[in-house]
Parts: sequence; C-alpha cells; structure tokens
Amino acid sequence: MTGPGVTALLDLAGIFVFAVSGALTAVRRRMDVVGMVMLAEATALGGGVVRDVLIGAVPPAAFTSTGYVLVPLAASALVFFWHPQVARLLPAVLLFDAAGLGLFCATGTLKALHHGLSPLHAVLLGVLTAVGGGILRDVLAGQIPVVLYDRQLYALPAMMGAAVTAGGAGAGLREGAVTAGAAALAFSLRVLAMRFSWRTPRPRGVPE
Amino acid sequence: MTGPGVTALLDLAGIFVFAVSGALTAVRRRMDVVGMVMLAEATALGGGVVRDVLIGAVPPAAFTSTGYVLVPLAASALVFFWHPQVARLLPAVLLFDAAGLGLFCATGTLKALHHGLSPLHAVLLGVLTAVGGGILRDVLAGQIPVVLYDRQLYALPAMMGAAVTAGGAGAGLREGAVTAGAAALAFSLRVLAMRFSWRTPRPRGVPE
Amino acid sequence: MTGPGVTALLDLAGIFVFAVSGALTAVRRRMDVVGMVMLAEATALGGGVVRDVLIGAVPPAAFTSTGYVLVPLAASALVFFWHPQVARLLPAVLLFDAAGLGLFCATGTLKALHHGLSPLHAVLLGVLTAVGGGILRDVLAGQIPVVLYDRQLYALPAMMGAAVTAGGAGAGLREGAVTAGAAALAFSLRVLAMRFSWRTPRPRGVPE
Repeated sequence: MTGPGVTALLDLAGIFVFAVSGALTAVRRRMDVVGMVMLAEATALGGGVVRDVLIGAVPPAAFTSTGYVLVPLAASALVFFWHPQVARLLPAVLLFDAAGLGLFCATGTLKALHHGLSPLHAVLLGVLTAVGGGILRDVLAGQIPVVLYDRQLYALPAMMGAAVTAGGAGAGLREGAVTAGAAALAFSLRVLAMRFSWRTPRPRGVPE
Repeated sequence: MTGPGVTALLDLAGIFVFAVSGALTAVRRRMDVVGMVMLAEATALGGGVVRDVLIGAVPPAAFTSTGYVLVPLAASALVFFWHPQVARLLPAVLLFDAAGLGLFCATGTLKALHHGLSPLHAVLLGVLTAVGGGILRDVLAGQIPVVLYDRQLYALPAMMGAAVTAGGAGAGLREGAVTAGAAALAFSLRVLAMRFSWRTPRPRGVPE
Repeated sequence: MTGPGVTALLDLAGIFVFAVSGALTAVRRRMDVVGMVMLAEATALGGGVVRDVLIGAVPPAAFTSTGYVLVPLAASALVFFWHPQVARLLPAVLLFDAAGLGLFCATGTLKALHHGLSPLHAVLLGVLTAVGGGILRDVLAGQIPVVLYDRQLYALPAMMGAAVTAGGAGAGLREGAVTAGAAALAFSLRVLAMRFSWRTPRPRGVPE
C-alpha cells in the first residue's frame, strides 16, 4: 500500500476511535440513540471542521467525504449494542486515541501550511484539529472540556507534534516522513505521560 | 400569493416560533432582556448560520436579511411582556415549532444541494439547519441539548424530511412540491410522535 | 504616533485584558496551565474570529497576526505566576475591559461595513465582536454566559457604540474620529453603569 493509502486508512481509524469516545460519553450521560450518533459525529469531525472553516477550506472535508460521515455511524452502532464490552477495552481505546491525536495534529498542521498560514498559526490549528472534537463533545455533554483541567498531557503532545511538523515542513523534508515522525512523537509522549502519570502544572498557589 | 412568497412567509413564521422558544428558555433561566434577545436570535438563526458557514455561503442569510434579525426581536418583545400567556399557548407553540422543523430541514437540504454537496451531506446539513438553533440555545442556557437525550422524535423527523427532499430533488421533481411534501412529512411525524409519545431507544442495557 | 498606530496598540491592549479575564476564570475553575492558555486565547480572540468567519474574512485576523496569538500567552504567564496580585487589581482590569469593549464594538462594526454588510448587520457583528469572546469563555468554563443574565450594562453600551459607529460611517465622517467617539461613548456608558449600578430589566413578572 502506498503512503497516501496508509494515511487515509489511519485517518479513518482515528475518526473511528474519536467517535467511540463520543458514543461512550453519550452512554454515560444516558442519551438516546440520536444523541449518541450526534455526539459521535461531533467528536470525530469537530476538530477538522473548525480547522477547515478557519482556513477557508469549505465545505470542510467532513462534508465532502462519505467515509467521514459513515465511520462514526458504524462506531455508534458498535457502542449502541456492545458498550459494556467496549468500555472494558478502554486501555486499547486510549492507545488508539493517542494514535489519532498524533496523526491529526500532524495532518492538521500540514493542511494549514498548505493554505498559506504561518508556522505559528499552523501549529495552533494542528492542536485545534486534534483536540477540538473532544472539546465539542464535552460542551455538548454539559461538562467542562476535560482537556482544560485534567492535567493529563494531551494538548501538549499535540503541540509538540504540530511544532515538529511545521519545523520539518519548513526544512523541506518529505511530508510523509514528517507526518510519520511527528505523529510517532506525539503518540509516544502521550503514552509515556499516561504510563508515568505525568501532570501539567496548575497556576502557582492553587492547592492540589 | 406565489410559491416563493409562501415559502418566505413560512420561513419567517418558523424563525418567529424558534425565537419564542429561545425567549421562553431565557425566562425560565431568569435571564435579563439582553439574554432574552440574544437567546431568541441564536435559537432562530443558529442552525441556518452554521449551515451557511459550512457550505461557504457567507455572509449567512441571517446577516443579509433584515427580517431575519427583526422577527426574533419582535418575538422577544412579545415574550418579555406576556410570557405567562405565551407559556399557556405552549401546545400551539409546539405545533408551529414542528412546522418550522419541517420547513427548515427541507430548505436547508435544498440549499446544500444547490451549493454542490452530495445528497448524504445535504441531508446532514438539512438536519443541522433544523436542530442547530435549539442546540445552540441549550448550550448557551447551560443545559445539555434536549435533542440529545429526551428521546422525543425531533431529529428523526427532520432526517426523514431531509432524505425525502434529497431524493425528490435527485429525481428531478419540482422544488416547491418537494419542499411542501418533505415538510409535511416531517411535520406529521413530529406531531404523531408527540401525540402517541413515541420514543427513541437508549443504548442496550441503559436502565429507564 | 499616528492614528493607525494608536489603534493597533489599543487593539493589543484590549486583547491583553480580555485574555487576563479568561486566565482568571481558569484559576477560579482550578484549570491547569493548558486550560488557562486555551481560555485566555479563546476569550481574547473568540469574538473577532466569529466575526471574521461570518463576513468571509478567512483566515481570521487572529490566524494571520503573530501579536494576537502571543499577547494572550503573555497574559497567561502573568496570571499563572501572580494571579493573587492580578485579582487584587480587578477594578483596573474592569476599566481596561470597558476600554476593550468600546474599541472592539467600533472596529468590529467598521470591519463588517467594509465587507459590505448593512448598518443593521454591522451593528450586530460589532456587538458580537465585543461580547463573543466572553461568551465563549463562559461556555468553555461550564457556566451560563454572564452577559446573558447578570443585568449589568455590558452588551448595551457595545450596541450603542456600534450604532454610533454605523451612523458616523454612514454620514461619511472620518473613521478614526468615529472609532474614537464611539469607543469613548461605549466606555463611558459601561463605566457609569458600573459606578451607579444601573441594571437591565428582567421580563415582566420574574421576581428579583
């Protein structure tokens, strides 16, 4: 399989895992099947849609690709019927989520660069691509976005991956290699942070 | 009156009823007049604005039409002075809301098709047009969007209407007839669902 | 210093103060450093980004200007290390916030007029520019947007300033003078309202 083929497959895999996280949130909040599908679609596609609207790439990719719409539907069906089993697989879900995080921060940064944004702003949009869907999921589920307070390393690995992507693209490296390297870096940082319980700091003086 | 004239009138009527639902929510949440007007405008115009941004039709219709801005103001004034009476008319409000739901899912789908989206994505945007304003209303009012969990048939009738619209347009039928038929279908389904308390399912194993 | 230079400086000052308000909210909600930076950026840039997306000026100014991204970072660093001291300066922060409100309602209205919107819609977007970031801050922090219920005069001074801007521009006055006058008016109204505890009305019959 060629590089673009692999990227497209990973892309759909990332969307699937993000959709699973949205659908599981819907179960926890006792939503119905409509809420589950909407939350799955919003979580999976939200970050990319916001990025595309901001760079002027409309209609966003989610509204031109059939797979992007159907994959969250499939994830919803899975969670609808087998959510206890899916919830037991949570460690695996978190691993795949880390892979999605890595991939999306890299591809989001590249797409922003292709649309003429500066490296600084491309990094910003790369992070937004990776974490935006989760933020939308939490706002729709009536909770403060987890990424804003839970002190896990989630946005920071995405930022590292986005920065490496912008740097590598600026240095003229091959985009496939840059994407792979940056995604692997963000993925590894995220997994290490989970394994060793690394924590981001709170403002000075705020008690534990 | 000609067909387009009727559609334009129904359009404003739908916006009025959506605005009333936003203004009544503001009363329940003890907001002031500013919150009431903002919630009325957001509920009435939110779905269409999101659709227009996503298909690249900017400025959105809400920002080029005077009526779209003034009608929610009028609805706010009505609710501001006579909200107990309006609340007593809730059954009628729900009927008009069902009519707005039907109309907006059809016109939203058609507009997306006109901008070159596929039938699948046009249906998605038709539903978003119909339910987006209510989602925005609930998020701004600090509550989980009703459409995500209350198990009423609300998004599903919109989806049916949107699908019939896309199918009819694809078959080359006259758009006025398609709009009328699809809106009537979504309206009827919504009203029947209220009358007979039809419920959407929750994920398997989630207790009542 | 020339007029445009002064406006650019005030612009960054307004963004700084809005970012401080976002970062202080993050402290109150016990967020970590990631949440603080995200909330600071969203509060400072949210209103302008929404305006730019709605008028079709993409990428929005926040995604082409380096200062717009870095100033909220600086505000976050300040609040991260010295938030007790910053919180003690709250009266001064509120004054600067009123200045930002005045400036942004005027510049937002002008930018919308330049993109061909009608005076009515330009006023709407001027208000959205001024209050949109605060609304996004509150939604992300899990609270009902303050501007919707707290009965302070906040959106109303912005509306006055926006209306004067649209009127002055329509009368062909010099834009620098219009901006200065409208911003001063909105600022003064806001400060007087705080000083004399002016309150917006609640709907008739809602108890205090």
